[in-house]
Amino acid sequence: MSEVNERLRHIIQHAYDNAPAVKEIMSAAGVSPDDIQTVADLDKIPVTSKDRLVELQAASPPFGGFLAVPINTLQHVFFSPGPLYEPSADQGAMIDTAQDIIEIAGFDAADVVINTFSYHLVPTGLAVDQVLTQIGATVIPAGVGNADLQLKMMLDLAVTGYLGTPSWLMALIEKAEESGLDFRGQFSVRKALVSAEPLPPPLRQTLVDKYGLSITNVYGTAELGSLAYDTKGDLPMHLLKTPIVQVTNPDTGQPVGPGDTGEVVVTTFDETYPLIRLGTGDLAVNVDPAPGKSLQEERSIILVGRVGDAVKVRGMFVHPNQLTFALSQVPGIARAQAVVTRPANRDELSLRVVLADEAADHEQLTAALGEAIRAACRVRADRIEFVAADAVPEDAKVILDERSWE
Amino acid sequence: MSEVNERLRHIIQHAYDNAPAVKEIMSAAGVSPDDIQTVADLDKIPVTSKDRLVELQAASPPFGGFLAVPINTLQHVFFSPGPLYEPSADQGAMIDTAQDIIEIAGFDAADVVINTFSYHLVPTGLAVDQVLTQIGATVIPAGVGNADLQLKMMLDLAVTGYLGTPSWLMALIEKAEESGLDFRGQFSVRKALVSAEPLPPPLRQTLVDKYGLSITNVYGTAELGSLAYDTKGDLPMHLLKTPIVQVTNPDTGQPVGPGDTGEVVVTTFDETYPLIRLGTGDLAVNVDPAPGKSLQEERSIILVGRVGDAVKVRGMFVHPNQLTFALSQVPGIARAQAVVTRPANRDELSLRVVLADEAADHEQLTAALGEAIRAACRVRADRIEFVAADAVPEDAKVILDERSWE
Repeated sequence: MSEVNERLRHIIQHAYDNAPAVKEIMSAAGVSPDDIQTVADLDKIPVTSKDRLVELQAASPPFGGFLAVPINTLQHVFFSPGPLYEPSADQGAMIDTAQDIIEIAGFDAADVVINTFSYHLVPTGLAVDQVLTQIGATVIPAGVGNADLQLKMMLDLAVTGYLGTPSWLMALIEKAEESGLDFRGQFSVRKALVSAEPLPPPLRQTLVDKYGLSITNVYGTAELGSLAYDTKGDLPMHLLKTPIVQVTNPDTGQPVGPGDTGEVVVTTFDETYPLIRLGTGDLAVNVDPAPGKSLQEERSIILVGRVGDAVKVRGMFVHPNQLTFALSQVPGIARAQAVVTRPANRDELSLRVVLADEAADHEQLTAALGEAIRAACRVRADRIEFVAADAVPEDAKVILDERSWE
Repeated sequence: MSEVNERLRHIIQHAYDNAPAVKEIMSAAGVSPDDIQTVADLDKIPVTSKDRLVELQAASPPFGGFLAVPINTLQHVFFSPGPLYEPSADQGAMIDTAQDIIEIAGFDAADVVINTFSYHLVPTGLAVDQVLTQIGATVIPAGVGNADLQLKMMLDLAVTGYLGTPSWLMALIEKAEESGLDFRGQFSVRKALVSAEPLPPPLRQTLVDKYGLSITNVYGTAELGSLAYDTKGDLPMHLLKTPIVQVTNPDTGQPVGPGDTGEVVVTTFDETYPLIRLGTGDLAVNVDPAPGKSLQEERSIILVGRVGDAVKVRGMFVHPNQLTFALSQVPGIARAQAVVTRPANRDELSLRVVLADEAADHEQLTAALGEAIRAACRVRADRIEFVAADAVPEDAKVILDERSWE
């Protein structure tokens, strides 16, 4: 922990001295750099939401007071949906974490990789290009599109690795098969680093089992770089060593305990653009094997959705994705809808369930559903009702909030 | 000349030793590296046309025997219409010439530039990005598209320079004006490096006069990098110091004299991918102030079209663009068509002219047209006829070849 604390003290002082927005946020909270000695002290600094960062950039363009170096020392300026400007020098959070994930994905000097992440406007394509060429790999800067041409290059150049979204990888494979090619037999691709969208477990399974690929699935953002990864198809994603990733209560900004759900909040060590406690808006379960003792790289997160989509039930965030995941664990369910009400000033969570087979054992299903929901959502269902198919339309919202707060 | 000859000897030996295709082409012509001591000796090596390069790559993918380094030392592989693969290491013809043109265009460390050349598949975007970041400029890697977003970035980041096609630059300016913005007054763009398509003189004039831009217009190809440039709006484009640019008779491969038209043939000093006497297929007038004594950077070329479109009249190539240029020099012409015939085994060039004003002085026009054609096309018109409007349809071919060769 001492190395990370040392880096933290350095970046906080640097950001405070050079990024006016960071100084302002800390000052408004009555926090000085001296107050931040360890990662635990970070909680004294309020979380800055991504929406707030957008507002600050709009009020003080282009970087909202977060740029901590002279603007003419920048190598690149990127722009990601948000809308958010991202400044970049030759090193920084994006490159540091790209180095980590490219090593984890197992790319090396012998690899010829097709890089289908965009090089235009957003930072990902150029960042992984820089790291891959530095380690001696050969890169085809491809972007997305031109499937036929990309397949031709993959064959002609005996491409061994793919970087991009999982859906474009699958689109390439399908295109190859439509053209009568045997992807596993005729192509040399064995490693894939996928990111920028969720990787559905069945798609991952297909890529691994049918096409013989080793898949590294990465979670990250354009502002912060890569944050977490999975190589085995597990739900929890391992955190990288840096940047500092916290899972916090979206109301208080304080870290949630192991097994609890909260917002992913990140602090980078990027001297160009130090983002201190940036709230990603992503909700995750905090998986911590030895709370208080684990190194960050020993911790994991299970992504469950976006903060705005979640409903708070008796103080716990419940996200539609968590509920959907819980329901998927119990066979025999056609569909279901959760309804949150508040009789007598107490939140109640009811589940309306449409069965695939009416004759199923209600008692057994009730027990199974109750347990799955408690495990996935960290909240107990107060009532589970089995209803007729038309009581829950096919396009019904997964969670219905029927509380009124007047 | 001695430095260029020394570099030439080195690259020829290197290519002969390491690029099997170069060895084969030289051997088939009975030429050994020792035979090539000066640029004048280069003419002993046959010209390889771009089409032939495509064939060689298809027969021996991916690089057709022109790669002169181990394939795993490549940083990037690009792919340009042709279709042609282009291998690249950290230095080479593309980067060398990008350094030259970026210096000529006057970009420096203080510039913030929007780079709208593509980074995907083709080499241009990444090459100029590398050079610009090396000199300390700040680059927005943008690609083409998203005009509104690009304009927002140009304003927010006070962009001083543009790189891309002239038509996209004009599209951006028009979009800005449609949005009620004053491009010259509100934007900071002052320098533009344009390439990849012809720059029509009226468009150049508008960019310079109305929008206050300094324009550097560059001629180059994806395989060879930049070859020539113009900063003043002149028809001749100055040759860069490297690579070696020759203007040659497309039939014999021998250099044409000053003022004559021939194919642009290029020899790079690229140790990764040495292209020796690659025929670009572009036709140009060889402008040489002191034949035999000029340094290459004192010479110029006037691009007049593509080899395949030209018609050979009494041994001289006449390209539609040359004729169109000649006609544009003479006021009072509505349109015209050249017809090539071959009575008594001698090529004859006749011109059918439709006048804008029937009452014009035929004798004076005949003299003016004759002189303009001789100057632009290096061939004398045998006959100039003034015809009625319907004798030359509006969509008529500029040159009609009515010879038969049985």
